[in-house]
Amino acid sequence: MQAQLIALDWGTSSLRAYKLGPAGKVLEQRALSFGIMHLPSESREIAGVRCSDGFELAFDAACGDWLDAVPDLPVIACGMVGSAQGWSEAAYRNTPVDVASLGQALHTVRSLRGVDLHIVPGVIEQVGLPNVMRGEETQVLGVLQGLAAHVLIGLPGSHSKWVEVADGCITHFDTFMTGELFAVLSKHSILGRTQQPCEHFQAEAFDRGVNVALSKDGQRGVLSTLFSARTLGLTAELAADQQPDYLSGLLIGHELAGLPEHAKHKPIVLVGNAPLCARYQRALALCGFAHVSLAQAASERGLWQLAVAAGLTQPVLEA
Amino acid sequence: MQAQLIALDWGTSSLRAYKLGPAGKVLEQRALSFGIMHLPSESREIAGVRCSDGFELAFDAACGDWLDAVPDLPVIACGMVGSAQGWSEAAYRNTPVDVASLGQALHTVRSLRGVDLHIVPGVIEQVGLPNVMRGEETQVLGVLQGLAAHVLIGLPGSHSKWVEVADGCITHFDTFMTGELFAVLSKHSILGRTQQPCEHFQAEAFDRGVNVALSKDGQRGVLSTLFSARTLGLTAELAADQQPDYLSGLLIGHELAGLPEHAKHKPIVLVGNAPLCARYQRALALCGFAHVSLAQAASERGLWQLAVAAGLTQPVLEA
Repeated sequence: MQAQLIALDWGTSSLRAYKLGPAGKVLEQRALSFGIMHLPSESREIAGVRCSDGFELAFDAACGDWLDAVPDLPVIACGMVGSAQGWSEAAYRNTPVDVASLGQALHTVRSLRGVDLHIVPGVIEQVGLPNVMRGEETQVLGVLQGLAAHVLIGLPGSHSKWVEVADGCITHFDTFMTGELFAVLSKHSILGRTQQPCEHFQAEAFDRGVNVALSKDGQRGVLSTLFSARTLGLTAELAADQQPDYLSGLLIGHELAGLPEHAKHKPIVLVGNAPLCARYQRALALCGFAHVSLAQAASERGLWQLAVAAGLTQPVLEA
Repeated sequence: MQAQLIALDWGTSSLRAYKLGPAGKVLEQRALSFGIMHLPSESREIAGVRCSDGFELAFDAACGDWLDAVPDLPVIACGMVGSAQGWSEAAYRNTPVDVASLGQALHTVRSLRGVDLHIVPGVIEQVGLPNVMRGEETQVLGVLQGLAAHVLIGLPGSHSKWVEVADGCITHFDTFMTGELFAVLSKHSILGRTQQPCEHFQAEAFDRGVNVALSKDGQRGVLSTLFSARTLGLTAELAADQQPDYLSGLLIGHELAGLPEHAKHKPIVLVGNAPLCARYQRALALCGFAHVSLAQAASERGLWQLAVAAGLTQPVLEA
């Protein structure tokens, strides 16, 4: 089957490359560790020139052989590669955005071998506190097919995103620093000192954390409930190996308590790392969110649609 | 003037020693760096015995010469010295507590030189989520003289305490991990990467942080507003050297938003580090708390009163 597009999901810590055929079918894919904070440093010859630029080297490692075989393949990328710390900055686009408007706003950087890399801009919302994302917008656009017209998409992670979509259009989103807070508290605060890791998921401790966040005590906010991860240990109500999952449930519970009330009546779709999505699904049920489903992350599908909207490739149907 | 009591305020990172005379008058005081996590390690002779115990060594450094001069001086201590990681564990006392009940519950450990150290127990509250303090109860009891019968005492710090007092009795308290969260986020999270320290207090940025916590956005909780410390930088609304004070105001604002509504009508007294209390005083005004005053931290006064209640010394009036 003939290759039509190279799609790169290029984040902070990893780089995924897809060779896509007609209708966006994945013909080949590879995962590299060359996120923009972990670029290769060993110089090499590219297109006859000695090169030591990390972005060029990573780009060549990701898809140089595909381009050698078909030099005119279009290439599209999303994620932190378009940030100020990336290869070339693709200015944010304001909400609302959809496939058509983002696809027409791709930012181009020319690689050493003469091939253009088309970078998807991140999205900014400036109503109230500013909010930004880079890469998640492409994941969201990639999962919309077959979903209800109005849906809330949750992307749990270091910086969890909650994205409201109406008729294929990203209208609003929020960011919660839940994952990063869990990590820094576990590694660097007094709470980590009494924690012990546990091989198995401690469901009871996790649920307890969620329920504390939802309780009257929880209304004082996470700055107040956090200390309970220590005091419940002091009072022998929480074993050392239950404390990590208690803290996880507590933080996720506070995140979900911060979702707007109308979210309770909307279909919710979780996208991302499966074990983390399972935690969120469990917590959402405890919080009374009724319509929750999971979707496979699919940046490559979003990238395909954006490339079609940009005219980089044709939405050819399979024969 | 004759010494009557040695009082030690012995915390995690420091040890303050007071030689008190009649009516608790401070005759001499010294500050040592020998908190329970920073004990001396070089062995030395104490009372004719070679000793390498860190608590004994710190105790001797703090008041050995005072005891050499007056061997039967009673000694009282408060703080983390009575924790499980301390010299000897003084079991928590449940709220409500006052000077009389705490004074009758001192825990004793005998030092190498034969002198007893009387340790003030920490206080635990087990209504709802458990809460504990060690040392703050003594600070609170030490500042009550001259205050209204019903008062809310705030002790800002790594783990801020808010202590409700009625008729000399500690009836309830909460803990907010505000200071520690500020420290770990600044040092170890993505927020720290764009922060630059600033010599001068950035009042405007601080106030903005407080106001965001109080705003509609703030109602989603601190997990959500935290990211604004980054995005306001990305949108050039906050300079790098304003970001630390913005984050400080944001966290303190969320802490104060978690105080009970009835606190707005109570006299509030702040105790502790002066620059930090000034931040809280500023934020309290923005939050609409009307009756706020400052009090000098005075563990030694609390320790004196507890020693009197315990019968370790006499409440002799000055001639």
